[in-house]
Amino acid sequence: MCTAITYKTKNFYFGRTLDLEYSYSEEVVIMPKKFSFPLRHSKTRARKYAIIGTAFVPDTIPLFYDAANEAGLCMAGLNFPENAKYNKVNENRTNVAQFELIPFILGNCADTEEAVKLIRKINITDTAYSRKLPLTDLHWIIADKNECVTVECVADGVKIYDNTAGVLTNNPPFNMQTFNLNNYINLSPGQPKNTFSSKLELKNYTKGLGAAGLPGDLSSQARFVRAVFTKLNSVSGKSEEQSVNQFFHILGSVSQPRGSNRLDGDKYEITVYTSCCNASDGVYYYTTYGNHRINAVDIRKVNLQSDELYRYPHINKESFNKQN
Amino acid sequence: MCTAITYKTKNFYFGRTLDLEYSYSEEVVIMPKKFSFPLRHSKTRARKYAIIGTAFVPDTIPLFYDAANEAGLCMAGLNFPENAKYNKVNENRTNVAQFELIPFILGNCADTEEAVKLIRKINITDTAYSRKLPLTDLHWIIADKNECVTVECVADGVKIYDNTAGVLTNNPPFNMQTFNLNNYINLSPGQPKNTFSSKLELKNYTKGLGAAGLPGDLSSQARFVRAVFTKLNSVSGKSEEQSVNQFFHILGSVSQPRGSNRLDGDKYEITVYTSCCNASDGVYYYTTYGNHRINAVDIRKVNLQSDELYRYPHINKESFNKQN
Amino acid sequence: MCTAITYKTKNFYFGRTLDLEYSYSEEVVIMPKKFSFPLRHSKTRARKYAIIGTAFVPDTIPLFYDAANEAGLCMAGLNFPENAKYNKVNENRTNVAQFELIPFILGNCADTEEAVKLIRKINITDTAYSRKLPLTDLHWIIADKNECVTVECVADGVKIYDNTAGVLTNNPPFNMQTFNLNNYINLSPGQPKNTFSSKLELKNYTKGLGAAGLPGDLSSQARFVRAVFTKLNSVSGKSEEQSVNQFFHILGSVSQPRGSNRLDGDKYEITVYTSCCNASDGVYYYTTYGNHRINAVDIRKVNLQSDELYRYPHINKESFNKQN
Amino acid sequence: MCTAITYKTKNFYFGRTLDLEYSYSEEVVIMPKKFSFPLRHSKTRARKYAIIGTAFVPDTIPLFYDAANEAGLCMAGLNFPENAKYNKVNENRTNVAQFELIPFILGNCADTEEAVKLIRKINITDTAYSRKLPLTDLHWIIADKNECVTVECVADGVKIYDNTAGVLTNNPPFNMQTFNLNNYINLSPGQPKNTFSSKLELKNYTKGLGAAGLPGDLSSQARFVRAVFTKLNSVSGKSEEQSVNQFFHILGSVSQPRGSNRLDGDKYEITVYTSCCNASDGVYYYTTYGNHRINAVDIRKVNLQSDELYRYPHINKESFNKQN
Repeated sequence: MCTAITYKTKNFYFGRTLDLEYSYSEEVVIMPKKFSFPLRHSKTRARKYAIIGTAFVPDTIPLFYDAANEAGLCMAGLNFPENAKYNKVNENRTNVAQFELIPFILGNCADTEEAVKLIRKINITDTAYSRKLPLTDLHWIIADKNECVTVECVADGVKIYDNTAGVLTNNPPFNMQTFNLNNYINLSPGQPKNTFSSKLELKNYTKGLGAAGLPGDLSSQARFVRAVFTKLNSVSGKSEEQSVNQFFHILGSVSQPRGSNRLDGDKYEITVYTSCCNASDGVYYYTTYGNHRINAVDIRKVNLQSDELYRYPHINKESFNKQN
Repeated sequence: MCTAITYKTKNFYFGRTLDLEYSYSEEVVIMPKKFSFPLRHSKTRARKYAIIGTAFVPDTIPLFYDAANEAGLCMAGLNFPENAKYNKVNENRTNVAQFELIPFILGNCADTEEAVKLIRKINITDTAYSRKLPLTDLHWIIADKNECVTVECVADGVKIYDNTAGVLTNNPPFNMQTFNLNNYINLSPGQPKNTFSSKLELKNYTKGLGAAGLPGDLSSQARFVRAVFTKLNSVSGKSEEQSVNQFFHILGSVSQPRGSNRLDGDKYEITVYTSCCNASDGVYYYTTYGNHRINAVDIRKVNLQSDELYRYPHINKESFNKQN
Repeated sequence: MCTAITYKTKNFYFGRTLDLEYSYSEEVVIMPKKFSFPLRHSKTRARKYAIIGTAFVPDTIPLFYDAANEAGLCMAGLNFPENAKYNKVNENRTNVAQFELIPFILGNCADTEEAVKLIRKINITDTAYSRKLPLTDLHWIIADKNECVTVECVADGVKIYDNTAGVLTNNPPFNMQTFNLNNYINLSPGQPKNTFSSKLELKNYTKGLGAAGLPGDLSSQARFVRAVFTKLNSVSGKSEEQSVNQFFHILGSVSQPRGSNRLDGDKYEITVYTSCCNASDGVYYYTTYGNHRINAVDIRKVNLQSDELYRYPHINKESFNKQN
Repeated sequence: MCTAITYKTKNFYFGRTLDLEYSYSEEVVIMPKKFSFPLRHSKTRARKYAIIGTAFVPDTIPLFYDAANEAGLCMAGLNFPENAKYNKVNENRTNVAQFELIPFILGNCADTEEAVKLIRKINITDTAYSRKLPLTDLHWIIADKNECVTVECVADGVKIYDNTAGVLTNNPPFNMQTFNLNNYINLSPGQPKNTFSSKLELKNYTKGLGAAGLPGDLSSQARFVRAVFTKLNSVSGKSEEQSVNQFFHILGSVSQPRGSNRLDGDKYEITVYTSCCNASDGVYYYTTYGNHRINAVDIRKVNLQSDELYRYPHINKESFNKQN
């Protein structure tokens, strides 16, 4: 399914894995302020901020998977199957279709606080993009350099949770995911002392034993625990290269190799792509399953006042560096 | 510590992670047949095969961590702390110092069978390379495209185990590692059916739940189980690019992010480098912690009759591919 | 903390463990219909049903831990620390103090359906019994031979959940406990087949490996999973002796030996007592930590029209059967 | 399968569970010194010590499962399937059939040291008792109040291991079982502090979380870990009643409820009986699956110079104590 994280060194970074058994043609897309993105149920308004992120562009408008805006606000939608419950259109409210939510929020809000206020005002609807692209069950992580929240539309209404760890995966609902972390309270990145029994000599026969009990499968709860553990204990330098490098190492801990997660019909869920956006500068880095090298697209290199999309198809082929 | 695996598609691949809290200056080294490698305790003999691998070259001769020879035989040494017991020099036998073992075997043997025969004949000694580079506790994985074994010098003598899974990590001894796999017999890469109780409705709320129970920490037993699971269930194409790509994904499942494995003195064990040698063609691929891009050195591009080493220092810096 | 279960063979059984680091003077108490139990906030009404259960009798009235009534309805209160949120007294409603809830429900309801209706009508208050016996954070399991529910007063209001498994322990809230069972979907009481990998020979070197992954600690989530697994897979005869015998074996799987659960101040949480009430006949069986033998008190042997309590102090001393 | 433990307070206690899917007619048997126990392959010698234990008596001689002698030496045989390798009869040595080993050792040795010396001298043979009672794969725990060892006849020869924990279950071989304890080094009977991450507030939402990760299934490795943890952390008084009571609580942690361990043909492995012998005084306590009450047979009450067996069939029926 997917994992998203935030990471802060000198700059603020935000990214995710997209784990699926298929892939559309993902692209890095820069959406300038004047690009026309007509809303289904509301009057289309001018957007304040340009956006960079990964999207699928079925026709003319981009369907964003994760993105950041010029102001440093970031947002990603992750699978939330059977738990997401969107609303019907309500004529008395500002209706925003689920697939419009990322550009709507990032186009108009400068930080998480503004995003939360705006979400409380709007009505997120169950409008499908098209017959071929039906409604997807999602929940969202929204973050800037100071704050991070999770937004879930469930049967009970819209829930907005503080996301202290800065991590999101999938099911179950976020309050259950965070509660479950308590069960790993006695794990440690350090080397353990014997607390099993003072009457027995035990030994650290290997480094890494302090985290024995950390789940290693690819279920959404296991990935949540592992990503939180890896991220919160992460150590890296603060330079751009060091930060981006470490970010991909953190998400590497929840990456899905082909074969380990077999679906019916002998399909395999894999990590289609992994992204890391420097939200302070607007540089979007990514790798794909087929390409270990880190690619980069820089929002500062295009005209953000334009009315056209800038599109950079994901590169999904290894580029070996031949040393001889 | 470390993890080594074999992988076979159209060609045969062999590689490993090196997990340490420090790093010497690792290099890819090609050692042609006529390069002089004087043995400490035996008459130096001509070598039949050139070798390519990662080594540290303290003075003039390479100390190989993992390597392959022209004939397609591969070998790597992995940490085996407190379990490795080497012999004293025995004048009546062919003595091979522990640090000479990889070039000795790969220089003279065409396949695993020959390697096993030769190991049974020689006396592996506890000779240190130098005062600064003391003896290391190691065990070895030796493989060609048809066969794989683990070699351990323990208190009981030299043990040579069939290595069906084609995976090696560290402690405990290999027979315990393989026995431990039985404890994961009911894990699966597929999606599970409810066998807990027919009286209860349970649901697959996430993909990947069939492998619940797979250990996720960085201890050597956990990495062994995870690497075996990931490798044996791996699915990939057979082309060079597909095979190498998948190989790095498999070893990615046991990669060590900085921070998750904290040693005393606030040092951190990380995956210093990851290698993948196409042993059929003699192309050695690797990544480093600091560089996600895959680098390649090709044995076919140099003169294998030479008497000099060819040396290619590991590149440890990201090389972002700027798409705009 | 505690575990409660239901069990049905020919008759219906209900019981629990009480796990604490101390013990009041528990007694089996039979409370006939005319025994005066004055309510704190409401007019005391006549009770329809006599009650049998374990209680602490601080002064004149019994504080029930678990009990059954003549009609076969059963109820137990289990620790629910920091999650239980009771109401203030509300003059417009029928107020029932938390400590009055068991006798109030069992005194007036014939089955779970009636109990649920009554609970929806009343206001459960945070009234403490006395200064010395302050408010306890509890949630409840209510069951008859056909149905079982969990009742929780939380910040959100009163939640009543179907309890299909017929098991209750403690934190977290019941919806999280039941969700967590999904994580054990691939466990089985049967002997496992190898689904790890067809490329590896694994073997069932021991019976019982199908349930590898079942948690063995004494936390409330672990006890919940273990009790559900043990109960739902339980196999027993239907006679009174066979049923009661098996009931104590099921609860034995979550029993707390002294020493395994050490609290601050070197206190130890232990299973103070374990009960099993045949709710069809009104026979209350129990063991104590200090006494493995099963003791029995029969409601049919006393005058249920009486206005006095019948009290049988728990026996906490082994009674060895000397065979020679 | 089975679990055996030792326990020392003021006196020394030794006992085991017998876990099987069937049961012969077990009895407590006292075998006086002069009772004739003819050896198959050796001259029958006078025995120094009378023995008390549980045995099956197919014809005239007892086949002991676990027993103690007058001197306080204890021994039990536990299943060791496919790993036990006994010898052929060797005319040059003292041959002792596997089924004779317990009475042979306990009849002649005063303590563990003597037992170890004697075992090193003899040849343990693969002689079956009869056609109907074929050879059983066993290993043994031998203990007195000062010392405990495990004895295993494997392909490599006879192995005698110090058993510091004083616990034995079944497969794998004992050195692997004890190594595996290292994997639980960070478990604790105490309440855990948060070592997962200082950047996250986690809470002890339940008592008992310090042992999260303790295995809860009925496999022989899980029972070994759980029994060692429970025994080594056990806290009890020193009186006879307190000691025996606690002993049964410890073994209760590895007891097998009917249904949790289902074999082919819908048979169920259960804990047929649990024993606890006060080896200092020669009092043998036991419970059966069908009877929670503790029964006792006292060696001091019979004539130990007799030449006849004293036999006390196991009681397998609940004896409820009716309190009214």
